[in-house]
Amino acid sequence: MERFDAIIIGGGPGGAKAARTLAVGGKSVALVENAHWGGVCLNCGCIPTKMLLGATAPKALLRGLERQRVAKGVVGVEYEALQKRIQRYTRAASQTLAKGLEDAGVTLFNGRGVCADPHSVRVLGPDGSETAFLSATAIILACGSRSASFPGLAPDHDAILDSTDLLAIPAVPESLIIVGAGAIGLEMADFFSAMGCTVTLVEAAPQLAPTEDADIARELQKLLGKAGRVCLTGVKASSLLTREGKAVLRLEDGRELTADKALVAVGRAPNTSGLDVDKAGCALDKRGFVTVDERLRASPTVYAIGDVNGKTLLAHAAEHQGAYVARQILGAAEGAYEPGPVPSCIYGALEVMRVGKTAKEAQAEGDGVAVSRALLTGNAIAQAGGDASGFVKVVWQKNRMVGIAALGHGVSHLVTAAQLLLLGHYSDEKLHQFMFAHPTLDEALAVAIQAPREPAA
Amino acid sequence: MERFDAIIIGGGPGGAKAARTLAVGGKSVALVENAHWGGVCLNCGCIPTKMLLGATAPKALLRGLERQRVAKGVVGVEYEALQKRIQRYTRAASQTLAKGLEDAGVTLFNGRGVCADPHSVRVLGPDGSETAFLSATAIILACGSRSASFPGLAPDHDAILDSTDLLAIPAVPESLIIVGAGAIGLEMADFFSAMGCTVTLVEAAPQLAPTEDADIARELQKLLGKAGRVCLTGVKASSLLTREGKAVLRLEDGRELTADKALVAVGRAPNTSGLDVDKAGCALDKRGFVTVDERLRASPTVYAIGDVNGKTLLAHAAEHQGAYVARQILGAAEGAYEPGPVPSCIYGALEVMRVGKTAKEAQAEGDGVAVSRALLTGNAIAQAGGDASGFVKVVWQKNRMVGIAALGHGVSHLVTAAQLLLLGHYSDEKLHQFMFAHPTLDEALAVAIQAPREPAA
Repeated sequence: MERFDAIIIGGGPGGAKAARTLAVGGKSVALVENAHWGGVCLNCGCIPTKMLLGATAPKALLRGLERQRVAKGVVGVEYEALQKRIQRYTRAASQTLAKGLEDAGVTLFNGRGVCADPHSVRVLGPDGSETAFLSATAIILACGSRSASFPGLAPDHDAILDSTDLLAIPAVPESLIIVGAGAIGLEMADFFSAMGCTVTLVEAAPQLAPTEDADIARELQKLLGKAGRVCLTGVKASSLLTREGKAVLRLEDGRELTADKALVAVGRAPNTSGLDVDKAGCALDKRGFVTVDERLRASPTVYAIGDVNGKTLLAHAAEHQGAYVARQILGAAEGAYEPGPVPSCIYGALEVMRVGKTAKEAQAEGDGVAVSRALLTGNAIAQAGGDASGFVKVVWQKNRMVGIAALGHGVSHLVTAAQLLLLGHYSDEKLHQFMFAHPTLDEALAVAIQAPREPAA
Repeated sequence: MERFDAIIIGGGPGGAKAARTLAVGGKSVALVENAHWGGVCLNCGCIPTKMLLGATAPKALLRGLERQRVAKGVVGVEYEALQKRIQRYTRAASQTLAKGLEDAGVTLFNGRGVCADPHSVRVLGPDGSETAFLSATAIILACGSRSASFPGLAPDHDAILDSTDLLAIPAVPESLIIVGAGAIGLEMADFFSAMGCTVTLVEAAPQLAPTEDADIARELQKLLGKAGRVCLTGVKASSLLTREGKAVLRLEDGRELTADKALVAVGRAPNTSGLDVDKAGCALDKRGFVTVDERLRASPTVYAIGDVNGKTLLAHAAEHQGAYVARQILGAAEGAYEPGPVPSCIYGALEVMRVGKTAKEAQAEGDGVAVSRALLTGNAIAQAGGDASGFVKVVWQKNRMVGIAALGHGVSHLVTAAQLLLLGHYSDEKLHQFMFAHPTLDEALAVAIQAPREPAA
């Protein structure tokens, strides 16, 4: 048995952040990971996706400028070379991460971590045999999530793929059905469309990007439609299967769509099966997520952070929670976990960003919700980039700014500024005094904050 | 004689902002402009330049991705169409601005404004005859600046051009000498190089971007050199003249350079000649700028804002000063003018941004200056964009963060976030609690702020 101050199961953004913070703070830490250091985000999630979209970015820019007839050209992405580069990059980054953790004093264990009791974790090898037995004062569950699937809509890894399969696909398919138009579905649709693949997006919810503001989603769908994309919303899939090597999607209305491949991107499910959390005194909710209190404690000795607690399924939320829990163990963080306004981005030729509440979320909390907005057509940098479609939208709750969202080319670049403006209550007097650099896309934030407010619809 | 609460001479960013703020605040305002509404910035400065650089942006992106062999292509800019689009856009934006001012209640006068006495301004027509005589409680001088020139280095508008000439040049020259490597020189060099023109940058100071940190300038020069650009620094020009239709630059060391055209971009000079500021009780400094006190007052009844007071020659500084002076007249602003940490950007394939002090500026104020930095190679979004060269640098003065600067592709997007982090004192505890969206280029700011600090060289 090896003793530590803390054992962390899962070496993704949350686990790695907690491990480093604890080690730097003088604690002995065991970090257990059964796949790759850096987790889904680095190895088969946000990072590979951004690298795909980075490679098609010149095409997206060029498209806008071509519409204005000020540029023309042909840009080709070398798909195989891009795949290799992504593999090289993520492998190297994963190794750098592991080395950095070891240098900080973290003890790394390759294997599957399973709870043994409120203070102990068994590490299992590929064959299921125990390779280590670890014990500690505190355990942090940070084991993340995987692609969710529903009966009839499960990847068969033949023509029906999950996002990990699709990221590793050796050649661009001619046609692709994507079931689910959240961030993953939208980003994959953007990349594969740019690569010349015929993409059909199918979303059960009445809008694309179901967690975003309805009018942002509506405008997004309109703009994607103009660009020739097929997006079906409010359409339920009843089954997905491989038939004669092709993906066949049957919709509840009886229609049948066929494509070379289909991606199932209908959400994420927690990696809690076989984790034996009950042995550590923890419970799972109906969907399988670890239940936690306001300090992210799942039991008196166990914390759960990141996707596995189901609070906010975003890499940076996991990281933030990891830092909080580590600082709590170190005695440096006090009080309940407070995420602040959570930022999120959907990347691509057209981007969506949001910090804080949507109008709908604010309205669910009571009356007095107003919105103000600024069109990007009024922004010189958006105009210079060739695509000034989209807008910035600010949500007000009883005259307090509680959310900022945007749709448009490059708006992911606004996310941190928007978050800081929101956190710092930059409206009225404070905004007047703030000197916005000119010309910047960021100025659209100021225009939206200062625009006349109207009651939220 | 027409009476107003305020007369503003100059309809650029500063004057327009002051005019609108006063009009919205219920004052009667006369705004006098002798060229185009929106001033140099909109009509022959920042905005046209950003539109040129917007058109070459796909080329810049492609170059990085080609180096990684993940993309290839050919992108051509339709220079004539681009010129037309810029003209159309700036003309329309200028008209929209004028209309917006009129709608807000501002009375617009086309003509040259000249001080008559501490309360009056004469408006002169193209032939110098008086077209209006205006009188007001307060006068705001916002007449901006023009390209500076030195004896022997004056544009002849034949082969030796100023930036306005170059922006309007009907075809891309085969070769171009640019004298002066500040923001204007660097941005023009970036555009014309991308257009296939052979550009030679000549800077008298020992570094490119003379107002920026020496190590940012050094790295910029190194990276431009790698990209095949010719940058001569610490080299003084002694004369520039058109000879047989070509631009000939003679250097103090005796060398002679020849090109199709030369741009003189050696700074800006205030538009105060013939303004008769003495009649309004104001004075000019040795360089011709209007002297002002800490409330931007040039006399008991006259204010001077923007380039013409020589404080900070940036459009957004003018705007900020315009808002301050207007609010002072409205009784809403109290105390001395406080710009806060001023943001600035140099745009292009490689960008430079800065907010607050350089290390050198901080060192001039005393000891205890340290710097911390983060390379962009460690940032996933920089990697995905194909060019992860450059870095973010933070300047500390006695453990207080007083400046953030960056060099690299797309770093202009960091400027507002950096400014808000600086203003909000986001270091240590506050930064720990802040949730940075992942992956974003913005994360490089956090890494730089948290990096080990070393004494400034």
